[in-house]
Amino acid sequence: AAIERRLPCSLEELYKGTTKKMKISREIADASGKTMPVEEILTIEIKPGWKKGTKITFPEKGNERPNVMPADLVFIVDEKPHSVFTRDGNDLIVTQKISLAEALTGYTVSVTTLDGRTLTVPINSVIHPEYEEVVPREGMPLPKDPSKKGNLRIKFNIKFPTRLSSEQKAGIKRLLAP
Amino acid sequence: AAIERRLPCSLEELYKGTTKKMKISREIADASGKTMPVEEILTIEIKPGWKKGTKITFPEKGNERPNVMPADLVFIVDEKPHSVFTRDGNDLIVTQKISLAEALTGYTVSVTTLDGRTLTVPINSVIHPEYEEVVPREGMPLPKDPSKKGNLRIKFNIKFPTRLSSEQKAGIKRLLAP
Repeated sequence: AAIERRLPCSLEELYKGTTKKMKISREIADASGKTMPVEEILTIEIKPGWKKGTKITFPEKGNERPNVMPADLVFIVDEKPHSVFTRDGNDLIVTQKISLAEALTGYTVSVTTLDGRTLTVPINSVIHPEYEEVVPREGMPLPKDPSKKGNLRIKFNIKFPTRLSSEQKAGIKRLLAP
Repeated sequence: AAIERRLPCSLEELYKGTTKKMKISREIADASGKTMPVEEILTIEIKPGWKKGTKITFPEKGNERPNVMPADLVFIVDEKPHSVFTRDGNDLIVTQKISLAEALTGYTVSVTTLDGRTLTVPINSVIHPEYEEVVPREGMPLPKDPSKKGNLRIKFNIKFPTRLSSEQKAGIKRLLAP
């Protein structure tokens, strides 16, 4: 059976791609059958857009024993949680917390992308609780063609005022009267 | 193997309990082994609070054949979809569609219960999208003790205005300014 090891990657690493050097300790055997411990550095090329579960196999990098084929060593990509984005396939999702006044009167989203650019997305429509603003091609790169990208989907968590005075209520009734 | 038949019940029937008469057609055998078709009426007592999946077994009400035990006939309670309520265990859930103005300035919920009473629930707090008003003991009766009941949970679907004029926006900004 192959030896499996988790390979935790940040969303930034999976967005841009990166090279990871992993130190492994294993036993190797000489011609006489005597084994000795060695350390090796394996280089793993993380390609842009790789997903959680992607496997990278290093054949026969398990411990050597006389007359036994060493096992394969398999790294399995895992996605570290990100403070801003969650991933949904090739899409990225970000949730912005805004006030009810911002939702109703206009709001400009500002997001720092995984490669460090600042995206500015002005929204002029009324933002309701299920509103989703889709920014094309600002998601994750497609593994098969990293020049193409998924979408960035911006969702909103609208913070309602906890209480309103009777003057505020009267004003809102007047303003929003059908 | 037992013969299974669905027994669709409305939420009203499961709330109040009811008696259902089910006509079945089966074959019965006489002493000589000759079989003949008969129709029978089975009476099923639906108890208040019964849940989807409850089984009522009529032993040996399958077809009779010489030298073979007739199969059991099993009715399985199924819950018909209701236009107003959904059921969650012993709780009932109702979703009210209200305007944003109603959510902010106060709203009185009016619900017709499964036994035909009108419940009036005034809500004075600001209703936000996750707001839930719990009315104790207005849910489904507990099957083991129908004098006790689950809760009625009132949820809200807040309809935002699709567009606002710049005057409305200015007014809202002024009213909801922090």
